[in-house]
Amino acid sequence: MSNHRDFQRMRLALTQARRALQLGEVPIGCIIFSENGEVLARSGNRCNELINSTRHAELEALQVSRLLLGDAFHSEIQKAELFVTCEPCIMCAGALLTVGIKRVVFGCRNDRFGGCGSVLELNDGSCGLPEGGKPFDCIGGILEEESVALLRQFYEGPNPNAPRPKKKNRNNKQTSLEPSFAAEIS
Amino acid sequence: MSNHRDFQRMRLALTQARRALQLGEVPIGCIIFSENGEVLARSGNRCNELINSTRHAELEALQVSRLLLGDAFHSEIQKAELFVTCEPCIMCAGALLTVGIKRVVFGCRNDRFGGCGSVLELNDGSCGLPEGGKPFDCIGGILEEESVALLRQFYEGPNPNAPRPKKKNRNNKQTSLEPSFAAEIS
Repeated sequence: MSNHRDFQRMRLALTQARRALQLGEVPIGCIIFSENGEVLARSGNRCNELINSTRHAELEALQVSRLLLGDAFHSEIQKAELFVTCEPCIMCAGALLTVGIKRVVFGCRNDRFGGCGSVLELNDGSCGLPEGGKPFDCIGGILEEESVALLRQFYEGPNPNAPRPKKKNRNNKQTSLEPSFAAEIS
Repeated sequence: MSNHRDFQRMRLALTQARRALQLGEVPIGCIIFSENGEVLARSGNRCNELINSTRHAELEALQVSRLLLGDAFHSEIQKAELFVTCEPCIMCAGALLTVGIKRVVFGCRNDRFGGCGSVLELNDGSCGLPEGGKPFDCIGGILEEESVALLRQFYEGPNPNAPRPKKKNRNNKQTSLEPSFAAEIS
């Protein structure tokens, strides 16, 4: 279930997504909060900067948290909440299961490769669990219109790194404002 | 289909797994070969060293390849073959789909969280594909006994970082010599 605090926190993730956009990245932002509400990490997609299509905002945020928390990383991350403007892909959802994060809140769906309900539902552990991993609570659709609007700005903009938008298929199940944009994201 | 070269290359991955064992890591090794047979990366599991349970041998190898190849990373990795002593987990299989690697050869199965047939079969794209990602050829069971023997050495050894081995369930489908060890690995 979402609450007022989720919306406040997703706004901060959207700020990170806007920064990613300014840097020529697919505008996805992420922020991790500790159990006490401290910010453990702020990040954005860095695939273009690092020439590495696996450097998604969630993996960057986990890495930043690890650097901040040191030896306490695994114990603290298991009490933490991650906010990301687009549904974690299968790779990222696998990573979040592996570290055992407590809760994930996302904006728009990732119809192409979403690992938290759109393609696979890894979060509840029904697809399998890594050693030491835990299922995590997950909710989507928080500020999804704002998340999609940013993606639209990227895919319709002049950025030379932007892949060509896919043709929309109106027969597909669609819940977000412009889910075809979400579908572009790995 | 496997061939003589696959066994030769898996022996090199096993060398990396042995090095990981010496360093107190879960002994999983990985090696990536370019289209021309050059070594692009050698790596082992580094979860303990980096206090980060997501630093699996495959992600380390992708990172090393990226540093070596620079701008050519994505074009070259799509012609490359990755050898790893244990089946890639769901996270790593997602990463390998994302970069579009050509072929993956693994040793023993990962019954707990395997993403190339044991829990999910991500490699053929049937579970979904990331933007720009490609299905990859995949074969397992190459030198699996040697791979499992190393894992046994870790889990039965005195290493303080070693998690407790799980109780074997003889009713589970099992193809490797001691698949319960493979099941320990995320």
